[in-house]
Parts: sequence; C-alpha cells; structure tokens
Amino acid sequence: MTAGTAATDTRSRLLDAALRLFSEHGVEGTSLQMIADELGVTKAAVYYHFKTKDEITEAVAAPALQELDQIIEEARTKRSRSAQVDHALTGFVELIVRQRPLLGLYNSDPGMQRVVNRTFQAPRGADLKTRMKTVLAGEAPSLSDAIMVHVVFTGLTMAGGAPQYADIDDDTLREHLLDAGRRLLGRPRKRPGGAG
Amino acid sequence: MTAGTAATDTRSRLLDAALRLFSEHGVEGTSLQMIADELGVTKAAVYYHFKTKDEITEAVAAPALQELDQIIEEARTKRSRSAQVDHALTGFVELIVRQRPLLGLYNSDPGMQRVVNRTFQAPRGADLKTRMKTVLAGEAPSLSDAIMVHVVFTGLTMAGGAPQYADIDDDTLREHLLDAGRRLLGRPRKRPGGAG
Repeated sequence: MTAGTAATDTRSRLLDAALRLFSEHGVEGTSLQMIADELGVTKAAVYYHFKTKDEITEAVAAPALQELDQIIEEARTKRSRSAQVDHALTGFVELIVRQRPLLGLYNSDPGMQRVVNRTFQAPRGADLKTRMKTVLAGEAPSLSDAIMVHVVFTGLTMAGGAPQYADIDDDTLREHLLDAGRRLLGRPRKRPGGAG
Repeated sequence: MTAGTAATDTRSRLLDAALRLFSEHGVEGTSLQMIADELGVTKAAVYYHFKTKDEITEAVAAPALQELDQIIEEARTKRSRSAQVDHALTGFVELIVRQRPLLGLYNSDPGMQRVVNRTFQAPRGADLKTRMKTVLAGEAPSLSDAIMVHVVFTGLTMAGGAPQYADIDDDTLREHLLDAGRRLLGRPRKRPGGAG
C-alpha cells in the first residue's frame, strides 16, 4: 500500500515537474534526464512510470481532457437546451482557468499541440468533439449554429491560454471569459458591468 | 529581366509545392529534397531561394500575414467604429477562406504553428496584434471587450481551418463565418436565415 501510494505520488509529482519544465523549455527542449533532475530521482525512476517523453506529454494533458469529457456528460443530463449550454459554458471556463499553464503551453508549444491534436483525431477524441457539439448546438444544428459554437469555444480556449492575459488573476479571467461566453452565446449575464 | 521573372516564378512555384507537401506530410515530414523533386529541379535550385526549411515555412505563411496587416490598415482609415469592425470582419473572413490550406496546416501542424507563433511574438507581429485589437475593440477597450474580440477572431481562424469543415465549399464557408462573426459581434446581418 505504502509503495503504491508512493508510486502514485511520484507519478503526480513527475507530471507537475514535467509541466513546469515544458512551460520553461518547451516540450522539445525538455529531456527525461531534466525531469529526473528536477525531481531529484534517477532516470530509471522516471522510466518506471513512462517510457517516452511522448507518454509524459500525453499524461500531462490527459486530466484536462478527462475533465472536459465529464463536463459534457454532466451537461447532457440537464433537461433544457439553455441549462445544458450554461452548464457546459461554466464548466468549460472553470476548466480553462484551472488549466491555464497547460493551455498556455498548448497555445505556444508544437510538442504539446501535436499530442493534443492526435488525441482529438483519435476515435475517442472525435467522439468527445461530437458530444460537445450536440450539447452546445443541439441534436441537428444548422451549419451556422455549429460554426458559431465552434468559434466561441475554440476562441475561449485560445484566449484563456493567451500570453497577453497571463498576468490576469484567476477570478478576473473567469469573470471575463464567462461574460464573453454568455454575450457571444446570447445567454443571460450573471452580473452587470464588465462591458465597455 | 527574363532571368528575374523566372526566379520569381520558381520561388512562387516552390512555395505552392511546399504548402502542398507540408499539408500532405507535415512540415517535419517534408525535406528540401522532396520539394526539389516535386518541382523537378535540383536541391541547389531550392537552396538558391531558401537556405533552410524554416525559411520556406516562414515564406509560405508570410503573404497571409501581410494581407492581414493590409486589412487592418484599410479598416483603420474608416471613420466609424462600426465601419472599421465591418471592414476588418469582412476582410478577415475573405482571408480565412482564401487561405484555407494554410490555416488547415496551422491548425494541425506543429512546424507551421512554431513559425507563425514566432512571427506574432516578434515586435512586428506584436504590433500587428495591437493594431488589430484597436481596430476591433477601440482605443482603450475594457478587458471584457478585448477578450470578446480575441475570442471571436481566434475562433473564426480556428473554425476556418478545422478539418470538419474542410468539405464545405468556399462560398458556403464564407457566408457562415461572416454570419457567425456578425452575430457574435452584434453587427447587422446581411441576409436572413442561416440561424437554427
């Protein structure tokens, strides 16, 4: 049990260290040895968890993709179209804010982009995209609605990881992304102000 | 003169061939030799124009970035805020539709993303981003407005190059991107219908 817990702990510390190093040096510029050094363990200890840097990069991105999947599944249980959209939008913005370092990396790093794009092109990722579209735009959306939803959600993702907003604190970013999402999707806005 | 024209012609054919090969094999998977073979010239002929694949990748993306710059400058000459936004939106959507192969590559290829990101991080690219924001959101936009404009324009770019819309013909894509942009920016829509 203790050994198992220690292994889980090392794995999770390893992914934190990898994200830190990726953000600083890029995925390409980070070696397994650098990750081992950052953790103060041997390269063999890193190999125990991951055989390649690609596996580490995937594992760094995986929790965010799983959370996204969960948000969509929760949204699907809501009765009305508007409740589904509100749940998806709120959950999505929460996820963006919580995963800012990862999104920043995704927005700027070819190595992370390669891994995430590959995930979305795989059957499970493609299915996630389809479910997301259905929740946000309905069962058989017009092309116009489908494109609008695509624009808003990819746009929120890009804005959340954009370097020019990196200095904004989490609460402010959350408020403004939600505000932009609600305005763009024609949903009622929670609080007055914020608009120019 | 004839030699100069031939060189210009070769350069332009070279960039067309590079974009074709990049789209098929990725930037990483394309060699200078493959580009030479595609054109039926020697590798030395390719070297005459470009020393590295990075230079070719930059040159493939450069015309679209120059066009974007021009659209922003034209929009800046318009008197009213709404005329500026309309001009920028129309020009931007035109550019997206005309540059679909390049955008598709940018959306999926780490090599192209690296080069374009680097361009936007350089002083001239950063200045272009600032001018674009000013045209679209005004001189001193609220954070909320700045983020909204960021969301819409990055979203339109991503949607324009998204693989799921690759089969849509240019006119239909143009119509729907314009429609989405106008709805999202609260601009009057040119034609009825299209919404679900």
